Amino acid sequence: MSATQKPDKTVVVGATGLVGSEIVRTIERLHLPVDSLFLLASERSAGKMVEFQGNELTVQEFSPDFFRDAKRVFFSGKDGLSEEFCQVAADEGAWVIDNSSVFRMREDIPLVVPEINIDAVGETPGIIANPNCSTIQLAVALAPIRDNYGLRRVIVSTYQSASGAGGDYLDALMQDTALFLEKGWEAVGRDSLAFNCLPAVGSLEEGGRFSEETKLEIELKKILGMPDLKVSATAVRVPVAISHSESAVVETDKPIDPDDVRSLLDSMPGIGVLDNPDGRNFPTARQAELTDPVWVGRIRKAGIFENDLAMWVVADNLRKGAALNAVQIAVSLHEREKS
Amino acid sequence: MSATQKPDKTVVVGATGLVGSEIVRTIERLHLPVDSLFLLASERSAGKMVEFQGNELTVQEFSPDFFRDAKRVFFSGKDGLSEEFCQVAADEGAWVIDNSSVFRMREDIPLVVPEINIDAVGETPGIIANPNCSTIQLAVALAPIRDNYGLRRVIVSTYQSASGAGGDYLDALMQDTALFLEKGWEAVGRDSLAFNCLPAVGSLEEGGRFSEETKLEIELKKILGMPDLKVSATAVRVPVAISHSESAVVETDKPIDPDDVRSLLDSMPGIGVLDNPDGRNFPTARQAELTDPVWVGRIRKAGIFENDLAMWVVADNLRKGAALNAVQIAVSLHEREKS
Repeated sequence: MSATQKPDKTVVVGATGLVGSEIVRTIERLHLPVDSLFLLASERSAGKMVEFQGNELTVQEFSPDFFRDAKRVFFSGKDGLSEEFCQVAADEGAWVIDNSSVFRMREDIPLVVPEINIDAVGETPGIIANPNCSTIQLAVALAPIRDNYGLRRVIVSTYQSASGAGGDYLDALMQDTALFLEKGWEAVGRDSLAFNCLPAVGSLEEGGRFSEETKLEIELKKILGMPDLKVSATAVRVPVAISHSESAVVETDKPIDPDDVRSLLDSMPGIGVLDNPDGRNFPTARQAELTDPVWVGRIRKAGIFENDLAMWVVADNLRKGAALNAVQIAVSLHEREKS
Repeated sequence: MSATQKPDKTVVVGATGLVGSEIVRTIERLHLPVDSLFLLASERSAGKMVEFQGNELTVQEFSPDFFRDAKRVFFSGKDGLSEEFCQVAADEGAWVIDNSSVFRMREDIPLVVPEINIDAVGETPGIIANPNCSTIQLAVALAPIRDNYGLRRVIVSTYQSASGAGGDYLDALMQDTALFLEKGWEAVGRDSLAFNCLPAVGSLEEGGRFSEETKLEIELKKILGMPDLKVSATAVRVPVAISHSESAVVETDKPIDPDDVRSLLDSMPGIGVLDNPDGRNFPTARQAELTDPVWVGRIRKAGIFENDLAMWVVADNLRKGAALNAVQIAVSLHEREKS
C-alpha cells in the first residue's frame, strides 16, 4: 500500500471543546472519508460519549500513541499541547491540522484558508496551521477584492463572540447575564462581558496591541501573500454567544464599485452576500450562527480614500472561523490526493 | 428688568423619556439656576410625579402656552414636536436646547459641544442643537487632537447601546434576553438585539449609509469646524444597556505620540483617560455608565498612516451623549450672562 493509500485513520485532539466537537460534527457533515476516528481529550473528559455517523464513540485520554499510522490529526486543545505534540504527529507521517496559534507565523508552516491558498500546502504530510477565527472570515471576504482591485490598507474593528474564548467563557457570559437580569446592575462586576463590550482580546503585545489584533494583522498578510499590506485592527469582545462580526474599511489600488463587489463576492464559493438596505437585511451574528458561509453586507463607499469600500463581515466563529476551515483543509487534501 | 435678568423659568419637553428624565436630574446635579421648572410630556405621561430638589413635580400635558416668559426650554420629545414647536419657544424669547436631529445641520443653528464650540452661540436667544450622542463623545476626544496635531481622516465603528434608541427599545432588549436565557436560542427572532449586533442604526440614506452614520460624519465636521475632514462611520447597535463605545482610527497632519496624547487628553475638562494595558483596564460601557466624562483608552499607533492613532472612546449616551451636554450648554450660557 503506498503512502497515498494509507487508511483514513483520523484523530481529533481536544475533541470535547467547542471547536473539537464541531470538528467531529463537520467531518460527518462534509463526508470526509474516515476509516477510524479517535477522539482524545484531557483525563477530565475521557469516558464521555460522542455521536458520530450513528455510533457512540468514547472519548479517550490523550496520548501520542494514537498518532501511529494516522492519516490526519486535528489539534484543537490547549496551545501547550500543540506546541509539544504537533511535530510528534507529523513525524508519524500524518497531516496535522492545528487550530492553535503556535505555528501560524512560522515561515515553513502553511497558514491556510482553502478558498485562498491551499496551494501553500506541499506534497509531504506535515503541520498546517488553521488561522485565527477573526482572520479567516476577513481573508475570505478580502481575497476577491485583492484579486480584482488590489489592496492597500485594511482598517478593521471586530465584534467577537464569547464562544471564541471557549466554553467556560461562554457559560460565564450566560450566568452573568442571568444574574444581571435577576438581581440588577450592581450584582455583576463592571468588568463582566454581560451587557458590555471589552476592548482587549488575548494578551498584551508590543505597541499596546493585544494578541487578537496582531493575529489579525500578521495572519491576514500571510494568508493573502501581501507582506506590505497595511492592516490596523481593533479587537473587541461583545456579549454575543456565537459568530464574530467585523466592520472593515479598505483602500484599493483601482476604482471599486459597491455593486460590482456585491456581484463578485456573491459568485465566490464560501461567501454569502446579504445586503438589502431597504429591508434592513444584513448579516448578523445570530443569522450566521450554525451556517457555513462568510456573510458580507453593508457594502458601500467608505468615503475616506479615492478608491475605497466599507463592509460588514460575519461568520460562525466555530464553523468557518475554526472547525469548518480545518476540515475543509483535510477535504481539499483528500481531493488533491485523488486527482 | 432687562432681558438678561429674566427669571430662570425652565421647561423640559419630553420630561419622562430616558433623556428627558436625565435632563431633570442633571439640572439639579449641576445646580443650574431654576426659579420654576415645568415638566411636559404626552397626554399618556401627564400626571406622573417627578422628584426635583426635594419636591414632587407633576408632569403636565404638553402645550406651547408653557413657553411664555421661559428663560430656557429643553426639547427631548419626538422629532415632530421639535420641528413644530422649537421655533415657537424661540419666538417667545427662550433659549431652546433641542436634542432632536431636526435643526442640527441648519447653517443658522449652532450645533454645540460646550467644551469645543460654545462660541458658536450668538447673543440673542434662539435654537441651539444638541448633537447626536455618538458624535458628541467622538468630538470631545478629537478636538484636542485637531488642535495639537491636525486631523485628516477619521474612521470610526460604533458599539451603541440600546438606550440610544429609547426606553421601549431598551426594555425589549431585556425581555428578549430573558426569553433567550429561559427558553433557548430559537425562542427569540434572529433579528433581535439579544446576543446580537445589528449593523443598521437609524434610517437608510443615500450611498447605502444609515442616518446614524451620516450624523456622525456631518455633525462631526460641523462641530469641529472642519468641512473638508474625511470621516467614515459604521454604526452598530450592540446588546448593551447604557453607554456607547467607539473604535476610532485617525490620520493626523503632524507626527503624534500615544504617550503625549494620553497626557494631553488627561488634561482636558470632560475627558477621563483610562488606559492601563498591563491591568487590562480600559473604558467600557458598564464602567462609563452613570458617569459624566468621555472616557478614552487603547491609545496607540494604528500603523496604517505615517501619522496616526487608534483609540477607544466610551461615554454614557444619556449623560454626555444627551442630557449632560444639553444642560452644560445652559450652564455655559448662564455663566456667560453673569460675566
